[in-house]
Amino acid sequence: MSARRPVIAFQGERGAFSQEATRKLCGPDVEVLPCVRFEELFQNLKAGRAAGAVVPIENTLAGSVHENYDHLVNFELPIVAETSVRIVHNLIAPKGVKFSQIKRAFSHPVALNQCLDFFAANPQIERIPFYDTAGSVKMVTEEGLQDAAGIASSVAAEIYGAHILRRSIESDRQNFTRFFLLRTPEYARKHPVRVAEGTQWKTSLVFSTRNIPGALFRALSAFALRDLNLMKIESRPLRGKPWEYLFYLDFLGRADSEVAQNALNHLREIADFLRILGCYPKGA
Amino acid sequence: MSARRPVIAFQGERGAFSQEATRKLCGPDVEVLPCVRFEELFQNLKAGRAAGAVVPIENTLAGSVHENYDHLVNFELPIVAETSVRIVHNLIAPKGVKFSQIKRAFSHPVALNQCLDFFAANPQIERIPFYDTAGSVKMVTEEGLQDAAGIASSVAAEIYGAHILRRSIESDRQNFTRFFLLRTPEYARKHPVRVAEGTQWKTSLVFSTRNIPGALFRALSAFALRDLNLMKIESRPLRGKPWEYLFYLDFLGRADSEVAQNALNHLREIADFLRILGCYPKGA
Repeated sequence: MSARRPVIAFQGERGAFSQEATRKLCGPDVEVLPCVRFEELFQNLKAGRAAGAVVPIENTLAGSVHENYDHLVNFELPIVAETSVRIVHNLIAPKGVKFSQIKRAFSHPVALNQCLDFFAANPQIERIPFYDTAGSVKMVTEEGLQDAAGIASSVAAEIYGAHILRRSIESDRQNFTRFFLLRTPEYARKHPVRVAEGTQWKTSLVFSTRNIPGALFRALSAFALRDLNLMKIESRPLRGKPWEYLFYLDFLGRADSEVAQNALNHLREIADFLRILGCYPKGA
Repeated sequence: MSARRPVIAFQGERGAFSQEATRKLCGPDVEVLPCVRFEELFQNLKAGRAAGAVVPIENTLAGSVHENYDHLVNFELPIVAETSVRIVHNLIAPKGVKFSQIKRAFSHPVALNQCLDFFAANPQIERIPFYDTAGSVKMVTEEGLQDAAGIASSVAAEIYGAHILRRSIESDRQNFTRFFLLRTPEYARKHPVRVAEGTQWKTSLVFSTRNIPGALFRALSAFALRDLNLMKIESRPLRGKPWEYLFYLDFLGRADSEVAQNALNHLREIADFLRILGCYPKGA
């Protein structure tokens, strides 16, 4: 039974926020394949070692995960769904360890930076950068450290049999990470996404323009003149062309609707390069 | 004499690429103030402990240094000049150490990632992330390590009395970092930048729009309709408003020219928030 469950790859150790996103996107009935680096996620899906990959694309405080934008264009694996996860950081230690014993807190640098008020109020605790949030809990628990804690999701405490010393120590509660579910092109073709009537759709694409005055304005006009609402635009350097850029853009609408097709044809007139990265139901 | 030399703050150890940028922006006759974190640069300049700060803003391979965009808007220290530095990575070891002895290479993760071809060709050398490029040379030299090298600029080899085992090991030669020189508002007012006739100028600004359809398109129209050429646009999350963004924009032109003033007045009609970050001669 278990062998037939689909494998979904994510980055980080078991208990990472990506695992929570995986549950929201694919349900509880999947095998997870934790990967060390983001690139591995894409490689595993491309090579068929996973049926899907869950990748963080932006955080409301830290901004976009730019590396994953680069992989999206390089690997050509379509986005089929999105979700967002509220990031709640907890101070987690091996069972039996008390808060007063904690002298060091390990976590991913982004997580440490999101708990600055906690560290200001607790100057006796040193921040130590670690490769992963959930991985920090795994490490302090496996090593049985008596003076150290990890900072991670409550799921990490559960998985590694550790306990939460302080809940929700993040400075800013408006802390959400948006995730994409990626599939292979074949899978996406065979399994079109089914949704309730009235669902809104989003389309993500990437394009570059010739380096001429007003090029980006003209590109955006393809959407604005058709009342297609842009949700996000992100620029990334274009390899081999210093100071030129690729633009990643999300708009509200289905790529195969008539208005979007007209906009995309208009954009093709202007763009040097254009690729649809995916069309998926708008997340909550 | 030395005590009167202006102090310029940069991030990284002596010998960092930022020091090369400092030399290009301020000449050789300055004291440098190396800082551990980017935020310290801004704090030192704001508090008058430095007369200027040199900050990296984007790299043609890695993309923008987003943290510094955030600091630009928070600290309100004007940009008065820009330059770009070609990034050449060298494998550097203590004197007497041979290439065949090297088993570990320390450097900043971005630098390690920019030398992947070198590591693929030399699988016997382990990559070890370190906090700084020049700092890695300082460490291997001070510790007198016999099996380790740092990856950094040739200036770092000079400064720490180390020697270069392999020159220019970066995979992509189109590797440039753009730096800004920041001053205090008072300094910038008292010392207007003087340039040769015919020099081109750039203006950097940041704005946010109401979250309405077509808002970014309308904002860019303020420039496009006046033939003001955009050089770069960057989006960053807006704190406290999940999934809304600040836009950082560079255009070619002087902020105080009539056409730019008209464009800025037009943009003010549309923007919720608008601030000029600086107006400076276009770098080579």
